[in-house]
Amino acid sequence: MERERKDHLSGAGRTEGFSGIFPYIVSPVGERGEILEEPLRRLVSHLIGCGVHGLTPLGSTGEFYYLSWEQKRRIVEIVLDENQNRVPVVAGVTSSNTMEACRQAREFEAMGVDGILSILDVYFPVKPREVEEYYASVAKSVSCPIVLYNNPRFMKFNLEADTLEALCRIPNIQYYKDATGVTGNLMTLRNRLGDRLKIFSASAHIPVFVMMLGGVGWMAGPACVIPRQSVRLYELCRDGKWDEAMKLQTGLWELNRVFQKYNLAACIKACLEIQGFAVGNPIPPIAPLDAKAREELENVLRQMETL
Amino acid sequence: MERERKDHLSGAGRTEGFSGIFPYIVSPVGERGEILEEPLRRLVSHLIGCGVHGLTPLGSTGEFYYLSWEQKRRIVEIVLDENQNRVPVVAGVTSSNTMEACRQAREFEAMGVDGILSILDVYFPVKPREVEEYYASVAKSVSCPIVLYNNPRFMKFNLEADTLEALCRIPNIQYYKDATGVTGNLMTLRNRLGDRLKIFSASAHIPVFVMMLGGVGWMAGPACVIPRQSVRLYELCRDGKWDEAMKLQTGLWELNRVFQKYNLAACIKACLEIQGFAVGNPIPPIAPLDAKAREELENVLRQMETL
Amino acid sequence: MERERKDHLSGAGRTEGFSGIFPYIVSPVGERGEILEEPLRRLVSHLIGCGVHGLTPLGSTGEFYYLSWEQKRRIVEIVLDENQNRVPVVAGVTSSNTMEACRQAREFEAMGVDGILSILDVYFPVKPREVEEYYASVAKSVSCPIVLYNNPRFMKFNLEADTLEALCRIPNIQYYKDATGVTGNLMTLRNRLGDRLKIFSASAHIPVFVMMLGGVGWMAGPACVIPRQSVRLYELCRDGKWDEAMKLQTGLWELNRVFQKYNLAACIKACLEIQGFAVGNPIPPIAPLDAKAREELENVLRQMETL
Amino acid sequence: MERERKDHLSGAGRTEGFSGIFPYIVSPVGERGEILEEPLRRLVSHLIGCGVHGLTPLGSTGEFYYLSWEQKRRIVEIVLDENQNRVPVVAGVTSSNTMEACRQAREFEAMGVDGILSILDVYFPVKPREVEEYYASVAKSVSCPIVLYNNPRFMKFNLEADTLEALCRIPNIQYYKDATGVTGNLMTLRNRLGDRLKIFSASAHIPVFVMMLGGVGWMAGPACVIPRQSVRLYELCRDGKWDEAMKLQTGLWELNRVFQKYNLAACIKACLEIQGFAVGNPIPPIAPLDAKAREELENVLRQMETL
Repeated sequence: MERERKDHLSGAGRTEGFSGIFPYIVSPVGERGEILEEPLRRLVSHLIGCGVHGLTPLGSTGEFYYLSWEQKRRIVEIVLDENQNRVPVVAGVTSSNTMEACRQAREFEAMGVDGILSILDVYFPVKPREVEEYYASVAKSVSCPIVLYNNPRFMKFNLEADTLEALCRIPNIQYYKDATGVTGNLMTLRNRLGDRLKIFSASAHIPVFVMMLGGVGWMAGPACVIPRQSVRLYELCRDGKWDEAMKLQTGLWELNRVFQKYNLAACIKACLEIQGFAVGNPIPPIAPLDAKAREELENVLRQMETL
Repeated sequence: MERERKDHLSGAGRTEGFSGIFPYIVSPVGERGEILEEPLRRLVSHLIGCGVHGLTPLGSTGEFYYLSWEQKRRIVEIVLDENQNRVPVVAGVTSSNTMEACRQAREFEAMGVDGILSILDVYFPVKPREVEEYYASVAKSVSCPIVLYNNPRFMKFNLEADTLEALCRIPNIQYYKDATGVTGNLMTLRNRLGDRLKIFSASAHIPVFVMMLGGVGWMAGPACVIPRQSVRLYELCRDGKWDEAMKLQTGLWELNRVFQKYNLAACIKACLEIQGFAVGNPIPPIAPLDAKAREELENVLRQMETL
Repeated sequence: MERERKDHLSGAGRTEGFSGIFPYIVSPVGERGEILEEPLRRLVSHLIGCGVHGLTPLGSTGEFYYLSWEQKRRIVEIVLDENQNRVPVVAGVTSSNTMEACRQAREFEAMGVDGILSILDVYFPVKPREVEEYYASVAKSVSCPIVLYNNPRFMKFNLEADTLEALCRIPNIQYYKDATGVTGNLMTLRNRLGDRLKIFSASAHIPVFVMMLGGVGWMAGPACVIPRQSVRLYELCRDGKWDEAMKLQTGLWELNRVFQKYNLAACIKACLEIQGFAVGNPIPPIAPLDAKAREELENVLRQMETL
Repeated sequence: MERERKDHLSGAGRTEGFSGIFPYIVSPVGERGEILEEPLRRLVSHLIGCGVHGLTPLGSTGEFYYLSWEQKRRIVEIVLDENQNRVPVVAGVTSSNTMEACRQAREFEAMGVDGILSILDVYFPVKPREVEEYYASVAKSVSCPIVLYNNPRFMKFNLEADTLEALCRIPNIQYYKDATGVTGNLMTLRNRLGDRLKIFSASAHIPVFVMMLGGVGWMAGPACVIPRQSVRLYELCRDGKWDEAMKLQTGLWELNRVFQKYNLAACIKACLEIQGFAVGNPIPPIAPLDAKAREELENVLRQMETL
């Protein structure tokens, strides 16, 4: 049956690969650690209804760092079941340990995900060869496409151009999700790797730039909250309407400007609560936002609706 | 029976609390992820035979960051069984998630550990109040003494003096293991908290200084490799023989000077292999040391024997 | 006569203000510290001949940090004399000391510069209010337009949006030269200050982005070496030909990718030597490039000519 | 006459070299930039009367970074004249430019200083070879002893052990003033260079440690304010009374704990004003302390008097 699903997808988009808006799905967790199924299902169907092109559970915004394997497994299970093959699901796999990462990736693939967002969690400083080996091992343990994730601000290492060049020789390493935000770095990759590595933009300050460089889309947390506007931004870029795209991006930035002042997952969860999705609080010890911050978010959300 | 053990200990040292040399035990892991029981048992008994005052499994050197809960549980089980209540065992509990940390601490206490080394693993930046809440929750979930661990270089947050002052009001928060290496910080804590928080030195560049300030001991990885010299350093400090102590510390530093060039866990494991303990390689993606580095370690180990 | 010159300029561009390509002029200094007049004059006239819209002596690329006041004064004197009012000259004023910065700005204005690029050199950490006071004092000490310079990577402070908002109320503070490279920061400024502060792009990885956001031009060292291509990039942006502009920027980036590997001033001076301008070596202790680096530059310069 | 003076000193201390307490003299500057002669003379004689072993004008506390060459020259002139060869004077020479640093060092030597505290001011990142060449050039331009200054926190480079080993082969490079505060680094230097490079402690959190390692003294700003206590700390260390020394250091640390909250030069100047030396305000844009901070200083100064 899984095979069927994949064939189905390959008609609609699989052959063309992933592109467009892939929201990082939040992880609704109750006070005893249980996954809150109903708001997660509602969010998934809402986002698909708004036109997003894929779903990415277990990214940063999905609080992957705070979840046990059982919780992660349950979230992917619910997302896949609610999605019913409507859009590709790319699930995050993060570990500090190569063997464990491969195990998780294999299990997610067996459950039916369409791709893996692969993340290395570093404690002791790592050498480029160790980074390369980790990512290569994860890729080789599955057959679905891999999105490499690079976020030096949080992850304590940088995926260098040399490492990326070596890695993209592995057939299913096809995407790179860049959270460096360093425009020079992006041009270096473009000049060096061309289309051999398709780039997804991360942060809300830079998708237009990434798309101008030939990028394929935008994976990000805010798209949970402003899915329609995110889809429109993608479409403007795809159609080369750069002036309009830049104007829209600059307007949408006001949301992220507020997010920067607080914890990102707490913000996205609070916004979704305001919008009527009972996704609950961030996972302790991360504290929920206070009343003042929530009010700030309400104001900026109203502003977003007009964009 | 556990009660008995504790009473036994309280005669020998429990009432006086933890002090002296507590080696961070390495975690011997085989290629399929299994814990290598025999070398771990041999190491534990060897260290106790060398006079160490306690054992600390699941610290940095113990590669706590790279282990699953099942692996951690098995290591503590073996250490406790081999120890047979000869010295106090203080096991590391590390998580990004308060509820999970409490669960692990409770389980370790039920297994019979004498104390918990409590570590917060940060992804999203944390506020002092969130840090405080995490450590307070872990402490309150058990009745054994807590050692707070502070290592801003690796852990992305700093336990500030204000937070420590608040935390040491909780009765079982009694120790602070400092890996900041900032001498000014240590004097500030001493002036502010006096004996309310007993300080363990971390790194090999600073135990004499910590002991001069009233510190109670030294928790560190190198003590796996040079246990006798570490015990002597402690005794010189305890007896106020500062000139001799400083001379010994400066000599021992040469070992750490080499460790600084490579991965710490890889170094300690390689040293133990050289000394005849088959503890194996570091956990992938961390690579084992190459031949040149091993030779450097052999040379410095020979030098250590003469100290 | 100075009055006359200014009236003349106000016809050609002064009323409209500064815009376009302003190369950071290198500072050719001989072995005894003397300014090398002839290559400096040749470079100035060459750049104007290539269509640049202004000249900026004494920026980073101009090694302002390594020059005495007498050397700085002499460089500005030569640039002004060679320029003969053909394009606006915006000279860098950098100091750690408010009084000294004001003195230098006044003297440059008396000599006839059209604007001041104002830079604060920080040793002890500064508070936003101290930063604001410094920049306000310099601005008030002259009547010509001020370009605020922000380069947190080298200058140990950041010009925050609050400070910029306060400063742009001073009438002659009209421009902001951003070397943060942080795209989110640029959108925040745009949303908050609009046209009240005109933005010049700094680094070669970001001018198209800055221009899309309403920026007025590009002040940078590489424009000494690729003036025609820089002017074309500006014109493509001005005409809204974003796809072509991005393609050109991405091609030109290869030059900066090489520059990033070495000392910037040493690179620009070496490129100019290759192009036939005898501007000499960087100022010791900065070492000139070695043969391998020079060869790399020759290769990339050849590549640039085809763009 | 200079010859005479030097012979005179060599009787009292020159042959034995510099050791003990060398306060970093503040630089009293009036509102029009003039050096305030009278408070500077009073401070110099006061400190000598309190038993300090040398004087160091133009260090960090001396706001060297904010002074013109003319101001620096005047300060050294006054210090030398007031000192009248009573103690050695080691003047700071700081520049980003090798030639300029050599010129300043030669002029100070001709004026009669007994040693040069040599500091490199970095803008563009420097390579170890460039650092070495700068320090070697300054040393070779004079015949008096050189104190190398290393302060990576403020100065953007680190004097590595390899560089120090190469530099201390130059005969008049005899001292190293360490402001890294990294205890491991100090032991590495001790083990590697022994007495070939005599170490002065910098910060108030570490002099006892440095003296235990064979250090020769303490160069620091706080000694302007607590000269008698600083001399006593040195004497306790010299006599091997480590317990008493550590107790005194820990008490004195409270002063620096307050200094850490504010600008260092502003604090030392404010303390001296409280003590009756009219040294004035820090140099703008650095702001003077507010009333609350001054009160905090008054409280801690009272506490210091009892130590």
